[in-house]
Amino acid sequence: MSLTHFDSKGDAHMVDVSDKPETARIAVAQGWVRMLPETLEMITSGTAKKGDVTGIARLAGIMGAKRTADLIPLCHPLPITKAAVEITPDTTLPGLRIEATVKTSGQTGVEMEALTAVSTAALTVYDMAKAVDRAMEIGGIRVLLKDGGKSGRYEAR
Amino acid sequence: MSLTHFDSKGDAHMVDVSDKPETARIAVAQGWVRMLPETLEMITSGTAKKGDVTGIARLAGIMGAKRTADLIPLCHPLPITKAAVEITPDTTLPGLRIEATVKTSGQTGVEMEALTAVSTAALTVYDMAKAVDRAMEIGGIRVLLKDGGKSGRYEAR
Amino acid sequence: MSLTHFDSKGDAHMVDVSDKPETARIAVAQGWVRMLPETLEMITSGTAKKGDVTGIARLAGIMGAKRTADLIPLCHPLPITKAAVEITPDTTLPGLRIEATVKTSGQTGVEMEALTAVSTAALTVYDMAKAVDRAMEIGGIRVLLKDGGKSGRYEAR
Amino acid sequence: MSLTHFDSKGDAHMVDVSDKPETARIAVAQGWVRMLPETLEMITSGTAKKGDVTGIARLAGIMGAKRTADLIPLCHPLPITKAAVEITPDTTLPGLRIEATVKTSGQTGVEMEALTAVSTAALTVYDMAKAVDRAMEIGGIRVLLKDGGKSGRYEAR
Amino acid sequence: MSLTHFDSKGDAHMVDVSDKPETARIAVAQGWVRMLPETLEMITSGTAKKGDVTGIARLAGIMGAKRTADLIPLCHPLPITKAAVEITPDTTLPGLRIEATVKTSGQTGVEMEALTAVSTAALTVYDMAKAVDRAMEIGGIRVLLKDGGKSGRYEAR
Amino acid sequence: MSLTHFDSKGDAHMVDVSDKPETARIAVAQGWVRMLPETLEMITSGTAKKGDVTGIARLAGIMGAKRTADLIPLCHPLPITKAAVEITPDTTLPGLRIEATVKTSGQTGVEMEALTAVSTAALTVYDMAKAVDRAMEIGGIRVLLKDGGKSGRYEAR
Repeated sequence: MSLTHFDSKGDAHMVDVSDKPETARIAVAQGWVRMLPETLEMITSGTAKKGDVTGIARLAGIMGAKRTADLIPLCHPLPITKAAVEITPDTTLPGLRIEATVKTSGQTGVEMEALTAVSTAALTVYDMAKAVDRAMEIGGIRVLLKDGGKSGRYEAR
Repeated sequence: MSLTHFDSKGDAHMVDVSDKPETARIAVAQGWVRMLPETLEMITSGTAKKGDVTGIARLAGIMGAKRTADLIPLCHPLPITKAAVEITPDTTLPGLRIEATVKTSGQTGVEMEALTAVSTAALTVYDMAKAVDRAMEIGGIRVLLKDGGKSGRYEAR
Repeated sequence: MSLTHFDSKGDAHMVDVSDKPETARIAVAQGWVRMLPETLEMITSGTAKKGDVTGIARLAGIMGAKRTADLIPLCHPLPITKAAVEITPDTTLPGLRIEATVKTSGQTGVEMEALTAVSTAALTVYDMAKAVDRAMEIGGIRVLLKDGGKSGRYEAR
Repeated sequence: MSLTHFDSKGDAHMVDVSDKPETARIAVAQGWVRMLPETLEMITSGTAKKGDVTGIARLAGIMGAKRTADLIPLCHPLPITKAAVEITPDTTLPGLRIEATVKTSGQTGVEMEALTAVSTAALTVYDMAKAVDRAMEIGGIRVLLKDGGKSGRYEAR
Repeated sequence: MSLTHFDSKGDAHMVDVSDKPETARIAVAQGWVRMLPETLEMITSGTAKKGDVTGIARLAGIMGAKRTADLIPLCHPLPITKAAVEITPDTTLPGLRIEATVKTSGQTGVEMEALTAVSTAALTVYDMAKAVDRAMEIGGIRVLLKDGGKSGRYEAR
Repeated sequence: MSLTHFDSKGDAHMVDVSDKPETARIAVAQGWVRMLPETLEMITSGTAKKGDVTGIARLAGIMGAKRTADLIPLCHPLPITKAAVEITPDTTLPGLRIEATVKTSGQTGVEMEALTAVSTAALTVYDMAKAVDRAMEIGGIRVLLKDGGKSGRYEAR
């Protein structure tokens, strides 16, 4: 096995997927933002009442998915057919858990789009709550599920 | 204390920084990508010899810093005056540790730019090594240092 | 009927169009910029002779159509196959009438692309003439025609 | 008076503002989206309960303000220091009224940013409600207030 | 023969390719950056040892290919399936020779993407070496090969 | 002398310009597109009558100048205060000569912006005339003048 983004001379390139068939693709990724319990309380009470941190972060995640090929140098551009981001408070973290689902019909997978959605949503949470809690940490970003294409189904354990 | 991105009605807005003075700003953020020891070995031997995963991820991080205001909905656009990303292999993780430093002279801080640089670099590492290791995890993303502006110096413990 | 951009919990998402067939799509949208008669005179004499306000606004409209999915949060990205913008002076308005036609072969319609083309062209007209007429007004932006896809042909009355 | 975006040969250019002083600038623009009473009812009950059309449109407007110089060919890029969008239901329209306020400290005004915020918010409303009401119309887009810079204060009558 | 980007009235538009079949497309373009022999020496010794000018320029070229439709007003957006850039030192120039290969399966050719990749890579070389050699010149940018689509194979002599 | 974009370890970074004073900056760059005499004839008669190749290419160049920091990885973002592109037919080339002037008040020079404007204008000419002349060549891209900042005035011989 080898790193596919490099050719035989070791030069990075965007892998040629021209001969791959178009198949239905799905990827699910997750991550979290850990924060002080008070910060989480402020965000979740805000959701119910006034300022909507999670609504804005979800939207930023969806828009981030559309910018993936702009951000990741060797990532193929592809028109995604679905993007959704779920953000759930978890008082045991304490913080917010983020999960993104992206679909396309294309020649490459969409796990980078799902991961970028999660990252962008997490960064947006940080931005909106940083005035009250600078020590927040973003982590746990990984692919949960990937399906479609030759390499088959992958599910994280 | 409250979430500054919301006005008195609870509507999100881009905070008015018009009356803040322009001061020298710096922010340092960090994060990591955890992977299989074999993946790390493949990447680090690649750096020395041929394919340069870390070089490309560093560059993606720097370019990502410049896209911060495009990605984070309520983040102010500002012309950064320095961006650097360091990526260091750590066999005890095992994986790569990422640290980004961003500077500007402006009316708001640059911690979002530093965090976006780290995230984009980490996503790029994932993209380039995913063919050999889908279970990689991105984490530990946080602000190490922030200085400049009224709120003073912040250093993570 | 309900707002399709929201799931059963009321969270906004990019609608899943994965199972829709690719069909030929067309949309036509229109709008206008109302201005002082002297401003219109200045613009139309310019077209004939020197500065070309309408030529630049048409081009901005076409380029704007390509940025639609960047601007509209839940809009699907899709590669458009045709974009054209017509701008016609109308002394009875007085002002400029704008009409945009966009086509694609895809899983969603292109009315947002046509509307974005009209809006961007109208904003560009405002930008280029604002030094002489700040009171210009942009209006009448609506979809004239939409065809292709399951929902069938729509023509504005 | 003449169209400032054209030089003496009639060629369009980005006007030289190098010698203008940096001053505090503000602009306020407005517009509306007219729709069926049922559509407005669906949106406003949604705001209270579940799907938040106006919240998403406000955010799109703020983000659109940051993309102004990308969209309007001869518009100067400038780092805005504040952006806010208000959306108010109006049953007499019937529809939504949109008002955007943008500030910067710079060498040119920010009326294009305020107008672009209004337009993008209006287009986003259309996108989110188009499944139930294709005949919506966007109009009334104009500058309400502009202040700062040599040309002084402008208020629409 | 005529310039296809203009309609019968002479107005520029994005050509309608809706009825063209999707076919496999490839384009190869080339160019060079001429510089002082000392500059070339500094760059090529850098490649071997430390700073990697050509690696960064290659990456910028690949990313530039993905931005083509953003930059070229009447260029159709299309999801490219492969992009590679090769940069070779040539002491007889003296300077660097750049060659880009882009593929897609689509309704229009990808020669603009290949040319944009070459141009962006060349500009990046200039940026990275300008501190030591301001008189560098970029030239020889042309299409070497274009294949796929109705107009058939083109090879530069 | 050394390549300033690399630190002491040889890692590329965006150079720290935080301590440089803001000064008035100007840069002028030039380039050309060589073509068949018939192609030039078609373009120049078009300018007078109907399709306006040079007008569109000039506009694309101005807009390209604004995208420079998006395209060139280590280039500092900066708000330009003027951008103009001139395109002149030259029957002895034969082809079009392009000259771009960019100004800013900032901490770094604007030669990359001027060069990017020339390149984007040249690519746009190619795009618009490629249906009649695939063998066009872009060349002669270089900096004519750069002034402002510590390194002083540079004029190409």
